[in-house]
Amino acid sequence: MGRLSTRTRVTRIENTRTTRRPDAVVVEEPLEIRINGTPISVTMRTPGSDFELAQGFLMTEGLIGARDDIESIRYCNSFDDDGRNTYNVLDVTLAPGVRLPDVGIERNFYTTSSCGVCGKSSLDAVRQRTRFEPAGDDISVPIDTLVSLPSTLREAQRVFSTTGGLHAAGLFDAEGTPFAVREDIGRHNAVDKLIGWGMEVGRFPLRHTILLVSGRASFELTQKAAMAGIPVLAAVSAPSSLAIDLADATGMTLVGFLRGESMNVYTHPERIVTGSRRR
Amino acid sequence: MGRLSTRTRVTRIENTRTTRRPDAVVVEEPLEIRINGTPISVTMRTPGSDFELAQGFLMTEGLIGARDDIESIRYCNSFDDDGRNTYNVLDVTLAPGVRLPDVGIERNFYTTSSCGVCGKSSLDAVRQRTRFEPAGDDISVPIDTLVSLPSTLREAQRVFSTTGGLHAAGLFDAEGTPFAVREDIGRHNAVDKLIGWGMEVGRFPLRHTILLVSGRASFELTQKAAMAGIPVLAAVSAPSSLAIDLADATGMTLVGFLRGESMNVYTHPERIVTGSRRR
Repeated sequence: MGRLSTRTRVTRIENTRTTRRPDAVVVEEPLEIRINGTPISVTMRTPGSDFELAQGFLMTEGLIGARDDIESIRYCNSFDDDGRNTYNVLDVTLAPGVRLPDVGIERNFYTTSSCGVCGKSSLDAVRQRTRFEPAGDDISVPIDTLVSLPSTLREAQRVFSTTGGLHAAGLFDAEGTPFAVREDIGRHNAVDKLIGWGMEVGRFPLRHTILLVSGRASFELTQKAAMAGIPVLAAVSAPSSLAIDLADATGMTLVGFLRGESMNVYTHPERIVTGSRRR
Repeated sequence: MGRLSTRTRVTRIENTRTTRRPDAVVVEEPLEIRINGTPISVTMRTPGSDFELAQGFLMTEGLIGARDDIESIRYCNSFDDDGRNTYNVLDVTLAPGVRLPDVGIERNFYTTSSCGVCGKSSLDAVRQRTRFEPAGDDISVPIDTLVSLPSTLREAQRVFSTTGGLHAAGLFDAEGTPFAVREDIGRHNAVDKLIGWGMEVGRFPLRHTILLVSGRASFELTQKAAMAGIPVLAAVSAPSSLAIDLADATGMTLVGFLRGESMNVYTHPERIVTGSRRR
């Protein structure tokens, strides 16, 4: 548990030279999440921050509405053939009186759509309802802050330089100070872990924060941010059409291609203060 | 349908300069797949090659065993509020006598695990059984071929340069000639589309082929390749620990960090012919 990387032997080929050598690779393991003993989902994740991942996942999927809906989380006694606990199964016990919404067991958690998509616009078909939509959050973000985020995130990443295989997500305040950074082989897991962290420390919804992701801004990531009430989502790479639609509809500021001194602001640019740019 | 990118207006910030301008973004839309009228899965995808995506998905998830298991695929009459067909719902009709395996409707297709993960090794817990494991495929791949693949893939991508938001997957022969290239906002979708293409043209399983993916080699992508009998999987970025385990177990050659003249070979390097390297 908590192993971010492992060692393996590789055949390295450079031009005509072939060598055998050890190399670090990022760990990927399944995590099964159960609620009151019933399997709900299996996600491929990098071990570590599993409790955060579980509660962040349950929140961003709309299965719980608050940290207090959870009574306890524990690893099941799941043993492999050698008698070792795999630490790959979590059981979440809900607080007394808390019931799961009627999502139907055919629900597909990956795409967060429990309903059919017939007869609806794409956005309506896949959009979760959140109690914490970012609309109305009056955070002001100096352009200097946004420019500083990618390097802060890279500095906080302990693993990427050795394995090249992890996505990162960081949560920052308006001055660019990081609250927390999480890494995972799955982009969505890194964000769920961050949101689960916020729930754990009693900082939820995540008002007045900026979420930076190391890759692209998909619909799914944007939806998770919206579910957590995050008002500003910034991505190092491109957003999708549906991510832009969702950010626009929920009142979220969506920034893409945040690189060096430049960026694209796709929605709600009013939160970004360009006047304060220092050279 | 088939729209890879769309236009949006963005606020572009470079240093202190702010401009409004149009920009291209990649399209992301939900695709609901039904079997004989019953919703099976919703995946977020870039429209285009939807029939290939559906049949590739059903094959790599182990729901069908051959193209002939499918009688027909058609778009449902799914209309949005403006009366336009969304082209976001597909119904797959199975051939007479073909029945779905008993996967249980609680099956989570994202992680391809229908069973619990207690008491199993990670690999056993999430591994699909394939009839076409690549072990025994005697393809020989000159190192020159591998080195040439990334540039061939980039040349074949029509969209990446304008939106920066699409993953690509290409299927090649031992000389590096592309059979087909597919793009999607989801890495797994690009691979499913390629495999569905192979089924459509009667080239299945995909023996004696090389699959190149533009990003990382996750467990999920490696599993899809194994389900299609692909003997060589190459990735521009890093593989995960579980991807390496699965490639090793199924007899697949797994190449990572394929960049310029160099690469890492993680499993079954015997298929790669280094002697023929020309300068």
